Amino acid sequence: MDPLRTSIVDAGPTHLRIRGYDVLDLMQQATFTDLIFLLHHTRLPTPQERRLIDAILIGGADHGPGAPSCAAARLAASGNRQSPSAAIAAGVATIGDEHGGAGALCMELIAEGVGRANGDRTRFEAEAIRLVEDAQRTKTRIPGFGHRVHAEIDPRVDALFRLAKTEGLAGAGIEFARALETAIAQRIRPIPLNIDGALAAILHDLGFQPLVGKLLFIVSRVAGLSAEVLEEYTREKPMRIRFDVEYDGPPARRDGK
Amino acid sequence: MDPLRTSIVDAGPTHLRIRGYDVLDLMQQATFTDLIFLLHHTRLPTPQERRLIDAILIGGADHGPGAPSCAAARLAASGNRQSPSAAIAAGVATIGDEHGGAGALCMELIAEGVGRANGDRTRFEAEAIRLVEDAQRTKTRIPGFGHRVHAEIDPRVDALFRLAKTEGLAGAGIEFARALETAIAQRIRPIPLNIDGALAAILHDLGFQPLVGKLLFIVSRVAGLSAEVLEEYTREKPMRIRFDVEYDGPPARRDGK
Amino acid sequence: MDPLRTSIVDAGPTHLRIRGYDVLDLMQQATFTDLIFLLHHTRLPTPQERRLIDAILIGGADHGPGAPSCAAARLAASGNRQSPSAAIAAGVATIGDEHGGAGALCMELIAEGVGRANGDRTRFEAEAIRLVEDAQRTKTRIPGFGHRVHAEIDPRVDALFRLAKTEGLAGAGIEFARALETAIAQRIRPIPLNIDGALAAILHDLGFQPLVGKLLFIVSRVAGLSAEVLEEYTREKPMRIRFDVEYDGPPARRDGK
Amino acid sequence: MDPLRTSIVDAGPTHLRIRGYDVLDLMQQATFTDLIFLLHHTRLPTPQERRLIDAILIGGADHGPGAPSCAAARLAASGNRQSPSAAIAAGVATIGDEHGGAGALCMELIAEGVGRANGDRTRFEAEAIRLVEDAQRTKTRIPGFGHRVHAEIDPRVDALFRLAKTEGLAGAGIEFARALETAIAQRIRPIPLNIDGALAAILHDLGFQPLVGKLLFIVSRVAGLSAEVLEEYTREKPMRIRFDVEYDGPPARRDGK
Repeated sequence: MDPLRTSIVDAGPTHLRIRGYDVLDLMQQATFTDLIFLLHHTRLPTPQERRLIDAILIGGADHGPGAPSCAAARLAASGNRQSPSAAIAAGVATIGDEHGGAGALCMELIAEGVGRANGDRTRFEAEAIRLVEDAQRTKTRIPGFGHRVHAEIDPRVDALFRLAKTEGLAGAGIEFARALETAIAQRIRPIPLNIDGALAAILHDLGFQPLVGKLLFIVSRVAGLSAEVLEEYTREKPMRIRFDVEYDGPPARRDGK
Repeated sequence: MDPLRTSIVDAGPTHLRIRGYDVLDLMQQATFTDLIFLLHHTRLPTPQERRLIDAILIGGADHGPGAPSCAAARLAASGNRQSPSAAIAAGVATIGDEHGGAGALCMELIAEGVGRANGDRTRFEAEAIRLVEDAQRTKTRIPGFGHRVHAEIDPRVDALFRLAKTEGLAGAGIEFARALETAIAQRIRPIPLNIDGALAAILHDLGFQPLVGKLLFIVSRVAGLSAEVLEEYTREKPMRIRFDVEYDGPPARRDGK
Repeated sequence: MDPLRTSIVDAGPTHLRIRGYDVLDLMQQATFTDLIFLLHHTRLPTPQERRLIDAILIGGADHGPGAPSCAAARLAASGNRQSPSAAIAAGVATIGDEHGGAGALCMELIAEGVGRANGDRTRFEAEAIRLVEDAQRTKTRIPGFGHRVHAEIDPRVDALFRLAKTEGLAGAGIEFARALETAIAQRIRPIPLNIDGALAAILHDLGFQPLVGKLLFIVSRVAGLSAEVLEEYTREKPMRIRFDVEYDGPPARRDGK
Repeated sequence: MDPLRTSIVDAGPTHLRIRGYDVLDLMQQATFTDLIFLLHHTRLPTPQERRLIDAILIGGADHGPGAPSCAAARLAASGNRQSPSAAIAAGVATIGDEHGGAGALCMELIAEGVGRANGDRTRFEAEAIRLVEDAQRTKTRIPGFGHRVHAEIDPRVDALFRLAKTEGLAGAGIEFARALETAIAQRIRPIPLNIDGALAAILHDLGFQPLVGKLLFIVSRVAGLSAEVLEEYTREKPMRIRFDVEYDGPPARRDGK
C-alpha cells in the first residue's frame, strides 16, 4: 500500500506541526479559531479575519433540537447510550445540501459571477441578473437566499456584514451577494440574503474554497451537537423521543402472498 | 503498514470466496440468508436453521418511523439529499444498547446461566433465580424482557419459539430464557420475554456469539431503513420534519458577558 | 409537529404489517430476500425474481477489507469498541458515487435510453451510441463499465445474466446494457460491463427505481461489514491498524505567527 | 409527541439565545472557544480558562492520517464524493473508548479519587495507590497514561500543565493526576501521563463533567477531519487508498454446500 499523503500535518516522533507551525507553540499563543482558519487555509488569520471567523462559527453552532442535525443527534443519543461519538456522527450525516449546504453552493455561485466579471465590479449587476435568469430557466432555487423561519431579514446577516466592513474585509464577495439580492428582487420578488449567503460572501472574501462553506458549518455545528448530546445523556431517559406516525399504504391483505 | 487480516473473504484476481465457498456458486444456489449465516458463523445453515434466521431477520426489519433508528434515517434523508448512505448510516448509529441492543445483552446472560449450570438443565431454575437476584441487587434491568408497546405478550415471541420447536432447534437457550421468565415472575412481577429475548435464546441455540445478537438486528433493520430512505427521497420534500421544542434553560441575560 | 408519514409499515398495538402483509405470516413463510424485495417494491417477488435478488445480494456482500467501506468499518471498530453500530455506520457512510454508486447511475442511464427508444428495441443501438457520444463530449465516465481489479471480464456478470435468462426475466434492461457495451467498444475501446452494470440492467428489468441500485448494494454490503466488524471485535487488538504517512506540506516555520 | 426539551438554546422567531446569551452579541464579542465552553458549562470562561481550552482544542485537532479517525474520514471521502459530511461522520464514529476516549475515563478516575479523599489533599497519595491496585487486580489499563508513539514524555503534557499553573488554574485534578503517576511508577513501572490524562486533569479543575473529556476531543478533532476531507476532495483521486490484505481463513471448498 502507498503511504497516505497529507500536506497538513507533519507528525514525527518528537514533533507535531500543522502547515509548518509547531503545535506546542500554537497551543500557547493561538486560539482554536486561528487553528481552524490555518487548517482550511494556508496561513494563520489576521485579528480582523479571526474576528469574522469567530462570528461565523458562533452563529452556526446551535439552533436547538428543531434543526434536523440536532434532532438526529438527540435521537441517536436516545437509542445508543454507549457511544456519544455515534450520536454526533448521526447529526453530522444529517447535514447536506438541504441543511447547511447552501453556504457552499452560494460560494460557487459567487465565485462564478465574480470570475465572469473578471474583477470588474461594474459588471456585477449584469452577471447577477444572468445567474438569476439561469436559475429561473432551470427552475432551481438560488442558494443563500430566503429562510424557513426568518421570513423577513435574518439579523445575523447584518451583524456579519457590519463586522466585515468594520474590520475592513468586505470585498467582491459581499458586493456580488448584494448584487444577487437586487437581481432577485427585480426578476422574482424580494428574497433577502440569509445567513448561508452572508457566510458565503464573507468566506469568498477571505479566500476560502467553496467547499469550506459547508465544512465550517459542520465544524461550528458539532460544538452544538456535542452539547445537546451531553444534555441528552445526562438529563433525559433513553428512548424518550416518540413520534406520531401516520400510515397511508395499502390495507391489510388476506393472503400470505 | 501490516496487511489487513481477514478469515472471511479470499479475494483473488480470478476468484472470490467467502469462508472457502466460491461466491459464484453461492450466487446460483444459496439465499442471502444462507450468506448472512455463513458470514457470522463458520458454515452454511441447515434448512431448519435458515428458516429461523429468515424469521428473525424479517421480524426486526422495520417497525416504522416511530423507531429512533428509522426517524433518524428519515431526518438525515430530509436534510442531506446527496447521499442515501449517509441517511442509512445515521439510522445505524442510532442502534445501541437501548435500541436493538437487548438481544446481545440477553445472549450474554443466557450464556452465563447455561455455562454456570454446566449443561445440567435441572440447575437452570437455580441459576435463573441467581441472575434475577443479581439484577435486583445492582438495580439493573434484565435485558430481553418487557416492551414499550406490547404491554402483554409480543406475538412474535411465540411465533419464533413455535418455529424453533417445529424445526427441532429449541435447545438450552430457549429453556433457560423461559427459566428466567419464571424467576422474574416469582421475584419481581410477571414481565414477558420480548422479541429481543426470544431472538437471544434462539441465536444461542444456533451457536452464535453474543455480539451477533446485535449485529443481526442491524443487518435486518438496514433493509427497513433503506426502504424508508427511498420513500423519503422519492415522496417527501426536503426539510419537512418539524419538531416542537421547549426551552427550559436560564432566562435572557442583560450583559454581554 | 405533523405525524411522520409512511406507506410501508402499519404498526398498531396488536399488529405489524409491511405493505399490507402481516409480519407474523411473513416470518413463517417468507425469506428475508422476499422482504427486502417487498420493502423496495410494491409486492412480493416470484420465485424467479427472488433467485435473482438473492444472487445480487450475495454478490455484493463482502469483497474483503481492501474495499473502502470494509476498511473504514474495521478502522472504526479498532478505535471505538463500545458500539459495533458506529463501525457499521462508518462503513456505510463510505459507500457513495465512487464506491457502490455505479449501479444507481447506470440504472438512470438505462432508464433514459430505454425511455427514449420508447420500447422499440430496434432503436437501442442508436440510443446507446448517443449516450456514449454524450459521455465523450462531457468527458464523463460511463457508470457500470470497467473494473479496478477484473481488467478482463467479471465472471459474476455472466453468472447474473445467465441466471436472468434461465429464469425468464431478461428484458429491455439487459438488452440495452449490452447495446451500451457494444457502442463503447465501437466509439472508445472494449470496456466490459461490470457487476454494477449487470445489477443495474437486472434491477431495471425487475421494475425497481434507479435509487434502489445503490440501496440494495448497501443492504447487501452491510451483511459483510457486520461480519468483518465481528471479527475485528473478537480477534484483533484495538488500534492495531497502522498507516504509513507521507508529509509533503510546507517546512517547519521559525516564527510563532 | 411531546416537545423536545432543551436548556441550551432558546430559538424564537426574533431571537436566538444560548444559555441566556444573545447570539448576536456573542457573534460580535466572543470567540468560538468561549461558545464551546458556554455550551458545555453553565457560563462563559474567564480569559485564563479560555486560554486553557484553546490549548486543549488546538492540541487534539489533527495528528495526521495515521490516526484511525482521520484515516476513516479520508477513506469515506475517497469512496463517497457526494457528501463531505458523510466522511466527517465516518471519522467521528471511529472515536471511542480506545481512540480519544481515555480523557473521559481518566476524568472519572480523578473524580472518584478526589471525591473519596473528600478534598483532603494529604489523602491523595493513598487514594491513588488504591486505584492503581484496583486496576492491577482487575487487570485493566489505567486511562490517561502511556502512549503508542511518545514512549517517553509527551511535551504537550508539560505545556498544558505549565499553562494551567501560569493561569492560576491548577487544582485538585492536576495534583491527583500527578499522584496517580507516582503510584503507577511505584507499583507497576514509570508510565508517564499522556495528553488524555493531562486534558482530564485540567477539565476536572475547570468544573466539567467527565463525558466532556470525550466530547471536547470530538469537537477538536472535527476541525482536523474537516481539513483532511477538504484535501482528499480537492487533491486526491477517488478510490485511491489501497490496502494489502492477508487471508487466513479456511481453504477453498470443493462442494457447493
